Amino acid sequence: MSKEVNSESVSLCPLSTPAATEQEMLCIFGTGDLGRSLGQRLFQTGYKVVYGSRRPHSCGPLPPGTQAMSHVAAAQSARMVFVCIHRENYNFLETLAPQLKGKVLVDVSNNLKKNMYPEANAEYLQRLIPGAQVVKGFNTLSAWALQNGPSDANRQVYVCGNSLEAKQAVIEVATKLGFTVLDRGSLTAARELEDFPLQLFPEWRLPLQLATGLTAFFFFYLLIRDVIYSYVVNDKDISFRIMASLANKVFPIVSLIMLSLCYLPGVIAAFLQLYRGTKYKRFPDWLDRWMLCRKQLGLVALALASLHVLYTLIIPIRYYVRYRLAAHTISQIKENKTSPFDTTMAWRTDSYYVIGILGFGLYLLLGITSLPSVSNVLSWREFSFIQSKLGYLTLFFCTFHTYLYGWDEFLQPSSYKWFMLPGYMLSLVVPSVVLVLKLLLLLPCVDSTLTRIRQGWERTDPEQERKKLLLT
Amino acid sequence: MSKEVNSESVSLCPLSTPAATEQEMLCIFGTGDLGRSLGQRLFQTGYKVVYGSRRPHSCGPLPPGTQAMSHVAAAQSARMVFVCIHRENYNFLETLAPQLKGKVLVDVSNNLKKNMYPEANAEYLQRLIPGAQVVKGFNTLSAWALQNGPSDANRQVYVCGNSLEAKQAVIEVATKLGFTVLDRGSLTAARELEDFPLQLFPEWRLPLQLATGLTAFFFFYLLIRDVIYSYVVNDKDISFRIMASLANKVFPIVSLIMLSLCYLPGVIAAFLQLYRGTKYKRFPDWLDRWMLCRKQLGLVALALASLHVLYTLIIPIRYYVRYRLAAHTISQIKENKTSPFDTTMAWRTDSYYVIGILGFGLYLLLGITSLPSVSNVLSWREFSFIQSKLGYLTLFFCTFHTYLYGWDEFLQPSSYKWFMLPGYMLSLVVPSVVLVLKLLLLLPCVDSTLTRIRQGWERTDPEQERKKLLLT
Amino acid sequence: MSKEVNSESVSLCPLSTPAATEQEMLCIFGTGDLGRSLGQRLFQTGYKVVYGSRRPHSCGPLPPGTQAMSHVAAAQSARMVFVCIHRENYNFLETLAPQLKGKVLVDVSNNLKKNMYPEANAEYLQRLIPGAQVVKGFNTLSAWALQNGPSDANRQVYVCGNSLEAKQAVIEVATKLGFTVLDRGSLTAARELEDFPLQLFPEWRLPLQLATGLTAFFFFYLLIRDVIYSYVVNDKDISFRIMASLANKVFPIVSLIMLSLCYLPGVIAAFLQLYRGTKYKRFPDWLDRWMLCRKQLGLVALALASLHVLYTLIIPIRYYVRYRLAAHTISQIKENKTSPFDTTMAWRTDSYYVIGILGFGLYLLLGITSLPSVSNVLSWREFSFIQSKLGYLTLFFCTFHTYLYGWDEFLQPSSYKWFMLPGYMLSLVVPSVVLVLKLLLLLPCVDSTLTRIRQGWERTDPEQERKKLLLT
Repeated sequence: MSKEVNSESVSLCPLSTPAATEQEMLCIFGTGDLGRSLGQRLFQTGYKVVYGSRRPHSCGPLPPGTQAMSHVAAAQSARMVFVCIHRENYNFLETLAPQLKGKVLVDVSNNLKKNMYPEANAEYLQRLIPGAQVVKGFNTLSAWALQNGPSDANRQVYVCGNSLEAKQAVIEVATKLGFTVLDRGSLTAARELEDFPLQLFPEWRLPLQLATGLTAFFFFYLLIRDVIYSYVVNDKDISFRIMASLANKVFPIVSLIMLSLCYLPGVIAAFLQLYRGTKYKRFPDWLDRWMLCRKQLGLVALALASLHVLYTLIIPIRYYVRYRLAAHTISQIKENKTSPFDTTMAWRTDSYYVIGILGFGLYLLLGITSLPSVSNVLSWREFSFIQSKLGYLTLFFCTFHTYLYGWDEFLQPSSYKWFMLPGYMLSLVVPSVVLVLKLLLLLPCVDSTLTRIRQGWERTDPEQERKKLLLT
Repeated sequence: MSKEVNSESVSLCPLSTPAATEQEMLCIFGTGDLGRSLGQRLFQTGYKVVYGSRRPHSCGPLPPGTQAMSHVAAAQSARMVFVCIHRENYNFLETLAPQLKGKVLVDVSNNLKKNMYPEANAEYLQRLIPGAQVVKGFNTLSAWALQNGPSDANRQVYVCGNSLEAKQAVIEVATKLGFTVLDRGSLTAARELEDFPLQLFPEWRLPLQLATGLTAFFFFYLLIRDVIYSYVVNDKDISFRIMASLANKVFPIVSLIMLSLCYLPGVIAAFLQLYRGTKYKRFPDWLDRWMLCRKQLGLVALALASLHVLYTLIIPIRYYVRYRLAAHTISQIKENKTSPFDTTMAWRTDSYYVIGILGFGLYLLLGITSLPSVSNVLSWREFSFIQSKLGYLTLFFCTFHTYLYGWDEFLQPSSYKWFMLPGYMLSLVVPSVVLVLKLLLLLPCVDSTLTRIRQGWERTDPEQERKKLLLT
Repeated sequence: MSKEVNSESVSLCPLSTPAATEQEMLCIFGTGDLGRSLGQRLFQTGYKVVYGSRRPHSCGPLPPGTQAMSHVAAAQSARMVFVCIHRENYNFLETLAPQLKGKVLVDVSNNLKKNMYPEANAEYLQRLIPGAQVVKGFNTLSAWALQNGPSDANRQVYVCGNSLEAKQAVIEVATKLGFTVLDRGSLTAARELEDFPLQLFPEWRLPLQLATGLTAFFFFYLLIRDVIYSYVVNDKDISFRIMASLANKVFPIVSLIMLSLCYLPGVIAAFLQLYRGTKYKRFPDWLDRWMLCRKQLGLVALALASLHVLYTLIIPIRYYVRYRLAAHTISQIKENKTSPFDTTMAWRTDSYYVIGILGFGLYLLLGITSLPSVSNVLSWREFSFIQSKLGYLTLFFCTFHTYLYGWDEFLQPSSYKWFMLPGYMLSLVVPSVVLVLKLLLLLPCVDSTLTRIRQGWERTDPEQERKKLLLT
């Protein structure tokens, strides 16, 4: 009893409503999972599907309604051939070159890891069969989408190929299957398309590792400084503060440091260009890599800042805080003295909160403009206005917020327990340096030189100039 | 006095600045609202516009600067014809087949409801006049946009058609009118384009109905259990709690249930595949439909969770809460005893809040990655990492948050008023089931079988295998 | 010692891994900053680059690996020529017309300000050299992206041109350089592409100016009414309230007014159409401009509303608020009387907060749907449902929230200090007017007339009708 008879739950008629009078025949090479999933979907959309197989009579269960033939016969019966074979087995296709001449070959393959081969699978296929029109496509879909049609995260299909007509034909099939197609140009783009399904947040690794490292460091630092110190010196168990109070110190500290690390490489690059007197020299590799992950650094910092906001806003509903406030009121009554209202304190705390809110608001704005659809509608001038001008303003607000938090504690020796600085003081080092350096760059004389360098001007070393004259 | 003279407020010269030396002539069939709006806009952009009409001399007011002719004369004078006629009247166009041969016919029509006709209007038009090059387009615009040019929500125009050149010509006109054009492939896509303007959140209906139903149920359940119980048994009117406190119980309950309903169908599907031993059988229809609205389920749940967050954060500024806190402090003073600080209570409430914040943070992350522009730049591997791995983590955090809220009340009989469980206990049923089932699926033996099935492996029934051998 | 030898930090070999066997030759006209940046990048990607220069032997330092020739020789050696010259110098290219015939000319130029010339640079170039295939492209990139390849905000490249093949060739180069290309149609779109890099939030100016103006006005109004009045009349210094309390009055007031200004033009337009009895007359210019910046008005209002939410949520952690609450409790104890619980007060304040939250939630929803990627997937019907129906609901909630805030103070003379109304009363004028007008438009008789007008029906003046009959 064969599989076809068994799988009655699969509807045997095509799903598309209009009577497909001129059902086109499509060929699939390979009867593995990929080939079967694709064939089932193609058949359900209204195509006739034929499989090319080495052993057409024993190639295992096929989707109902489809048939298997030899590779030669299958290739001859269709205008378009989907190659659902592993790259390692491509070489046998060379023998089919005569039958595949002029056909559209769709390369659906992916590799197990990046850079396994010197050239992209699709380019290799094109080289094997120069007479065919190879189109790369469908490889960025999940198996589920190939079998069941597009879902939310799988609507987009990329294709690339050297022949416009061949691409048009593949786009037509993809559109009928319900996908949205994006043409990525010639076959040169195949490598990028083949690497795409393998990537797992490559640019996010460094920022996330940094955030994890900094968070762990500051957590233990503050654990020792606040909780353990209090336990050892004052013999008071305040370990319950770990959950919320400690975290609400660690998050803003790490967030501020990471935000300033977004802007540090730009400042370094500017000074490097000033020192070298030209913009045509490449930056060192570490600086290039750093500059490329600024967006991710900033977004991780924004996530931590958002946590800080939420942690701060729940303060008044926490048991500990309510208890302490009530205890304070009760003690005032019992001692029968009321602390007078301190206007400076009111100014200070309100400013502290307000500057924080404004900084966070700008921060959110930066985050929203880095959404792909928003940054795509911005011109370069607009984008750099927001990310640079508003970015430095954000950094200034957040740094100022932290200074206001410290207020006059910088001068009080009681802040330095066990010779450890409070966490927020440590967090102020990098942002302050970045802001000072940026201010230096804004000095008119420095700014004008930098602008000229960035417009292509080069400072010529008098020494070099002399040598040059001698040579010519 | 004719209309043209009257409408002086309409500028009679084309708006485009460059002197359009080679003003192209465009033809519009139909002098209804659609035709007039389009003609006015085309004329203002710098085209010459001629209308084809049955009664060219009495076809009513036309946009100033345009003229009307017979259909035959109009069709002959232009290279491109916009068909602004209802589909029911298309059949008379058959008589114009000689004049329309080789022309670009732009089908702008829409239907009043979906699936009124077996084939798309544009395909029908192409069948009527096979010699013309039919392009579907402009139909997704609002009348306002057709008349006044693109605005924010109306910048995008879709076209589809079988002829590359014809599409190029239409894209050119659309670009001149100021629209951004997206090529959707061949005329097969016309049906989709014609259905597009009719849809009103089709995938959102079920999730919204579910949310409404659950909200109503839990509202009345908690109304009886909290407010009416208190009124009947304790004779205390706490109806003012309906507005904020009750809502702040209903929203998180419904949100948690809906979040778990996002993940339940995936778990069911996995068990179904394990039971069947193959992935090539279609899922039952209800499961398919359920899986297709997971994203919408999740986003509605996120909206409710956000409301829960806001409702929680305003707690300390509510009059009732402030009154109760002050009353508590006053009573402590009057009775001259202070309740001691309860470290367990501090740990418990802080953990409860913190887990909730982290869960909400992850939840927001899931929401952001389901924005179209973000999910489009994610590879399938990245998308499934976030939506699956982080999704289950979110569900775990939110469920744990609810368990912490309950704490030891699960064991206290006082929680069960009128034999009704507290609402949050009811909300824990589905998420707990989903998490336990997911844990089962993560057991190494189950996981490896499932992975093999999803890679295309099929479990062969020994019975079937024997029969198969007998047959061959 | 020439520059080339000096710049050792630049890698001399192309970066692309596959051995580029058939290195294509590309030509660049112009050895300024733009030409050098582009040439360096092209060479690093694996192309051979030749510069066309007036003085090939003394044109200054070129990127290593490239060479300079005369314009004639350079043009003959390549199939594609990048024109990196200022538009003012284009005219000399006319002499090269024979050499440039059939070549792809890529116009990379930008202007210093909008509308400097009657036609786009690329169109001018095409007119100068009709035999060449001009493609506009790359001009929207920053210099950094041209030199160093695509980064996050610079991945997208727009091209337009009249020749499909020429565009295809340019898209191929751009794809190899790592950019994503969007085809914007024929050369007519060049003007738009050239204006794009110059724009700096043109539609945001008016809303931002309005927001600044309103904020300044209400700030000083409330400063006088609250702070200065209190200082002069009561001799109490409450200047510390400026920072948070005053701002938290100004932001919601301005936000509500701006939200209502989003909906006012739509209402005015409807009444204008009703009055004129037709939709075919253009709106006055000021109304058109107003309608085009509604989205920006709404988003600025949303930003201010978000600030209001954050300012409100920090209320309970502010020193001033805590002090006042404690003082209130202490005074109650000292006077030995407890204020009774006021159920009406509980209802009122809770309703006030809850309506505000719901309004803000809808507001956020409106904001999310105006993200480009979200509004692009919405049909026109869906978009207008959200922006119109839900928009008016948002306006209603926010207005109702403000009325609840006022409660019965509208009737109390004590609210009117120095004959100045409280700020929130002023803010209620415009929204109330908009809501009343909208209600009028929803009356069945008005609504049906408006619907007919919007479907193209025109009211014919009996007088005009009579005249028309006489004329014909």
